[in-house]
Amino acid sequence: MLDKLFKPKSIAVIGASNKPYKIGKTVVDNLTISYHGKIYPINLNEKEINGLKCYKSILSVPGKVDIVVIVVPSKNVPRAVEECGNKGVKYCIVITGGFKEVGVEGAKLERKIFETSKRYGMQLLGPNCFGLMNTSIGLNTTFSPIMPKEGNIAVFSQSGALCATLLDWAYREGVGFSKFISLGNKADLNENDFLETLEEDDETCVILGYLEGVVDGEKFIEITKRVTKKKPLVLIKAGKSSSGARAVSSHTGTLAGTEKAYKAAFIKNGAIRAESMEEWLDAARVFSTQPLPNGDKVAIITNAGGPGVIAADACDTYGVSLANFSHETIKKLRDNLPDTASIYNPVDVLGDADPGRYGIALETVLKDENVDGSIVILTPVATTRPFEMAREIARVAEKIKKPILASFMGGTLTDAGIKYLEEHGIPNYCDPGRAVACMKNLIKQHQNTERVEEKPTIFGDVDRKKVEEILYQADKPNVGFMDCIKILEAYKIPVVGYGFAKTAEECVKVADKIGYPVALKIVSPDILHKTDVGGIKLNIEGDESIIKAYDEMMVDINKREPDARILGVNIQEMVREENKEMIIGVNKDPQFGHLIMFGIGGIYVEILNDVSFRIAPMSKKDAYGMIREIKTYQLLTGVRGERPVDTDCIAEVLMRISQLVTDFKEIVELDINPLAGFEKGCKVIDIRMTRGN
Amino acid sequence: MLDKLFKPKSIAVIGASNKPYKIGKTVVDNLTISYHGKIYPINLNEKEINGLKCYKSILSVPGKVDIVVIVVPSKNVPRAVEECGNKGVKYCIVITGGFKEVGVEGAKLERKIFETSKRYGMQLLGPNCFGLMNTSIGLNTTFSPIMPKEGNIAVFSQSGALCATLLDWAYREGVGFSKFISLGNKADLNENDFLETLEEDDETCVILGYLEGVVDGEKFIEITKRVTKKKPLVLIKAGKSSSGARAVSSHTGTLAGTEKAYKAAFIKNGAIRAESMEEWLDAARVFSTQPLPNGDKVAIITNAGGPGVIAADACDTYGVSLANFSHETIKKLRDNLPDTASIYNPVDVLGDADPGRYGIALETVLKDENVDGSIVILTPVATTRPFEMAREIARVAEKIKKPILASFMGGTLTDAGIKYLEEHGIPNYCDPGRAVACMKNLIKQHQNTERVEEKPTIFGDVDRKKVEEILYQADKPNVGFMDCIKILEAYKIPVVGYGFAKTAEECVKVADKIGYPVALKIVSPDILHKTDVGGIKLNIEGDESIIKAYDEMMVDINKREPDARILGVNIQEMVREENKEMIIGVNKDPQFGHLIMFGIGGIYVEILNDVSFRIAPMSKKDAYGMIREIKTYQLLTGVRGERPVDTDCIAEVLMRISQLVTDFKEIVELDINPLAGFEKGCKVIDIRMTRGN
Repeated sequence: MLDKLFKPKSIAVIGASNKPYKIGKTVVDNLTISYHGKIYPINLNEKEINGLKCYKSILSVPGKVDIVVIVVPSKNVPRAVEECGNKGVKYCIVITGGFKEVGVEGAKLERKIFETSKRYGMQLLGPNCFGLMNTSIGLNTTFSPIMPKEGNIAVFSQSGALCATLLDWAYREGVGFSKFISLGNKADLNENDFLETLEEDDETCVILGYLEGVVDGEKFIEITKRVTKKKPLVLIKAGKSSSGARAVSSHTGTLAGTEKAYKAAFIKNGAIRAESMEEWLDAARVFSTQPLPNGDKVAIITNAGGPGVIAADACDTYGVSLANFSHETIKKLRDNLPDTASIYNPVDVLGDADPGRYGIALETVLKDENVDGSIVILTPVATTRPFEMAREIARVAEKIKKPILASFMGGTLTDAGIKYLEEHGIPNYCDPGRAVACMKNLIKQHQNTERVEEKPTIFGDVDRKKVEEILYQADKPNVGFMDCIKILEAYKIPVVGYGFAKTAEECVKVADKIGYPVALKIVSPDILHKTDVGGIKLNIEGDESIIKAYDEMMVDINKREPDARILGVNIQEMVREENKEMIIGVNKDPQFGHLIMFGIGGIYVEILNDVSFRIAPMSKKDAYGMIREIKTYQLLTGVRGERPVDTDCIAEVLMRISQLVTDFKEIVELDINPLAGFEKGCKVIDIRMTRGN
Repeated sequence: MLDKLFKPKSIAVIGASNKPYKIGKTVVDNLTISYHGKIYPINLNEKEINGLKCYKSILSVPGKVDIVVIVVPSKNVPRAVEECGNKGVKYCIVITGGFKEVGVEGAKLERKIFETSKRYGMQLLGPNCFGLMNTSIGLNTTFSPIMPKEGNIAVFSQSGALCATLLDWAYREGVGFSKFISLGNKADLNENDFLETLEEDDETCVILGYLEGVVDGEKFIEITKRVTKKKPLVLIKAGKSSSGARAVSSHTGTLAGTEKAYKAAFIKNGAIRAESMEEWLDAARVFSTQPLPNGDKVAIITNAGGPGVIAADACDTYGVSLANFSHETIKKLRDNLPDTASIYNPVDVLGDADPGRYGIALETVLKDENVDGSIVILTPVATTRPFEMAREIARVAEKIKKPILASFMGGTLTDAGIKYLEEHGIPNYCDPGRAVACMKNLIKQHQNTERVEEKPTIFGDVDRKKVEEILYQADKPNVGFMDCIKILEAYKIPVVGYGFAKTAEECVKVADKIGYPVALKIVSPDILHKTDVGGIKLNIEGDESIIKAYDEMMVDINKREPDARILGVNIQEMVREENKEMIIGVNKDPQFGHLIMFGIGGIYVEILNDVSFRIAPMSKKDAYGMIREIKTYQLLTGVRGERPVDTDCIAEVLMRISQLVTDFKEIVELDINPLAGFEKGCKVIDIRMTRGN
């Protein structure tokens, strides 16, 4: 995919220049330096640039042109794109800015170049982007003064400035990249296209991405679910706060998806979300150098207690487990370390440890089956020899294929050791807590690779046709209550007994079928607030009572709303059995589609905001996961002598709701509130549903 | 305080040596280099060390000796300390290890040297410490190869290795220190002594501390409350996790106080808790260079959207507000920035911004009264001139006394700018999020300085004598229920009506006084599970019912526990009014004294662990603060049509309980569960109390 874009045989630069500091000059310079294909500078007034023949127009270039980099002012871009189309070019990289990001006029211009490119079957990167790089063939279409070395990290970013920052950082740190893509305004090619390419790219072991929004959320999830099984995907999703979101919209005009939807998306796709630049870069380095652990058990080795404690605290914070050593390991440590050393985890080899002692401790713990990886801490105390320590660590790393992260602390004294470590592929973090955070990410990616992808559960017993009929008949966005009930029934979702009646006699008949106690609710298109006019009667027991209730209701309403059209009454079972009230909601997110919410009703949702989200379609694992994820989950398992609630039934309702909204994308909102959960079974008591267009 | 320790006129080194790499050699070297007082090396076998005359014993030194550094093996330390005492030395710094940290024998040795020093009226730093430094007089008693430059940061640390690390870091970063203290095992001098000294030290503007535990929690709070009003105190409290706590105990033998108590202590004293080494060092730098803001409103200036969004997200995470600019500011920005720049916060001066544009934007926003500080982000895009940008920022910083933090991102391209910034006292963070975290700490310290210290509330209407009588009469640690009630009444804490009766007739009398409904509970030293033998009757209404209930109870108990001694029955008011059940608990923490807990009863405490803590004695602010701090606070203010609860009454009960346990330190545990809160007033329904020895 995008093969010609990353491995072009020929490139033209429209807007190439001989003038120093011009982007059109820098781009040609960058290409000239390391790219070995054909380069065609295009400029009306120049004869030659960097010794290359210059053409007046792309159309006058003799041979085929695979990709074109466009750096002319925005007003000239449409013509340039048009000419590229005529020439039969495959890809245009539009570096020029001044499009969607500057307002309505720019957006129009952007639309125009997109349409032109589609007309000619071209694909567009940008506009307002930084270009791209493929280090393995020396390709650099950007105006960056820095060309990174080859490496196994791929980057795509919606912020060109972050690209520049990353290149500068990598240059200093000696980090290399495989592919480097600035997405710009994403008029055409977007994150999904590049994710698919990078998924298959053998030169890429880890993918870093900076996103402010995604173009097609559903496709994004589908692709990234696949990608993360194969290689780590570390994403910054900026604009999660309301203040951040505001900054995004004033920046690229991207409509930022809601934070909740993104959170659910990252649960679904297994992407590692970096919360800061630092975590992003730390993750890049650790994934590009370290093997994945086989579990979450870590050994800490230190030459000083304090930093060992700090690391242990960080393990607690990040949910990384401290390994329990085997008897054999403990014996071996006891035999080889001084009496006053701590041989349990964290292992304290003491301040006077020589490199050999460090080496034997590290080797011993890493050979233990209970240990999945290690963090080695070194403080520059009197007798420490950081450089030789580093050599010992590298020696062990060579022998045992488990992740080793170093935390050589301090500054000048440890520099040589840190340099040696990094040259030997062992990342170092001046703060032990950062090393632990990296270990957490390694563990998370290990879990991704182990993940068995569960297909969404599909129930075969649903009556899709019936729902279709109801939804297409409805003339308003708000689906009526009885229609909602019928839809649920068609999808075999348990609801309380209900019925409709037009007379007192019919009420008796319906109520006898449902079983008392029941509630009576007026059905009238003209009555909004049923309670105010006496249109709701609860806890009705027995035939006589229901007749009385019906008559009273009709009298009251006739008095208060004489002109209201009365269609009849709804009769509804009142739940008597001990139950817990829950909420299931569905909301259609503009980027990720149907977002399903679960929570326990009442104050838990209202005050504690204790709800969980998943994106439809949901698997069994999703359904149970979202039930267990809420903080008040214990309330469902039966605490304080209460009976447990039938979570199997709730999970099934969640999956059936997921199937319903997946089958009927036009359902934009759905609220089951409450769903009554019993010790055995559960029933929908009330529901609202909104149909979109 | 500790004046002679930090400004000695003469120092002896017992265990001084001529042998390279020996600590006794390094210490003398370090003293010789920059200390201008008298130095007396002590060694039996040497004549001269570094050209200084060597003495066979401290007793043979001719003049007065202010402080002695001891580096001889641990078994020889007691004799050395004894001789120091004889010589009339004021302070011993025992660098030697092998004491409490290695086990029981070591602890005995440590006890011995402590007692010796006390006998002579000496004070001891260490043992097992790194020594101390006072840069202003070139004093360095440590064996560190690095002597830091003068600065305004003071450090005390319970981990010698962290001292070494910090010195190495500071050397590279060009950071200076005022005082530097390694606490070691804290046999004598501890954090409190040094905090008091540093509080008064004009050379110190910010104090960094690393602690695994405190020696005297109450004194620690008293001192640090004062300190933090004057200067920032940034603490790492390690060992907060259970795994971390284990590492601590295997390290220095310190009994780590519970995490909850420390959390409450840091609420009380206003210390800034650093969660990582990085945050600790970042805070050191920011406090040593930046003025405090006058509020929490920050302006972000950036030359690229992406990093601006990242910073805005971080503001949200850390609770830092984005300032709303005045009309004037917005106008001025509009007039001076390009059309496509974002003139709202974050201000995006665009990628092509020259230094002047940055300068005018920064100056404009900082002059705005709504802005308390600024974060300036720079990414190395094409035309950026980081060095000149840095000069502009420094120019503005010179003019306007508000905090400015920089985030020049990248690597090589921004280096020169970063160096210039740091030379001009503007700290730089490669990750904008870290700059925001630092701003948060500046804001927190501003709030500390504004804090009005509230005295603990003291109620004059309590009957202390009565409680004294009850507590001293009690023969068991568990205070009986009726005694608890009397104690609460003596402290004017509202309790439900109650009484004691021995006959059915007495029951009627008591119940009439209390008012129905009441509960009846058997009082017998032999009955543990009252319910099982029919020893509890609830909801009794009326005289006849109570007689019947009493008779039934006696028959039942006679049947099931014929041998039990029956003392009578407790009669207790049953609360009928709508109420919310709360819990107030007291637990005596070994380090900080009485820890008071508050929560809403039932599942909120049990499942959500939704409780708040404060340390007694409490002020009004503490009491209201802990009520408002719980996540379910809204439940007390009246949601969903419920009545609000009288939080004034709850706060008063909290303060009176605080006064009670402060007056009676022997109360080690107290549980009010539940406290019924009404719309007006509240009442204790049940209470347990345990007296210590």
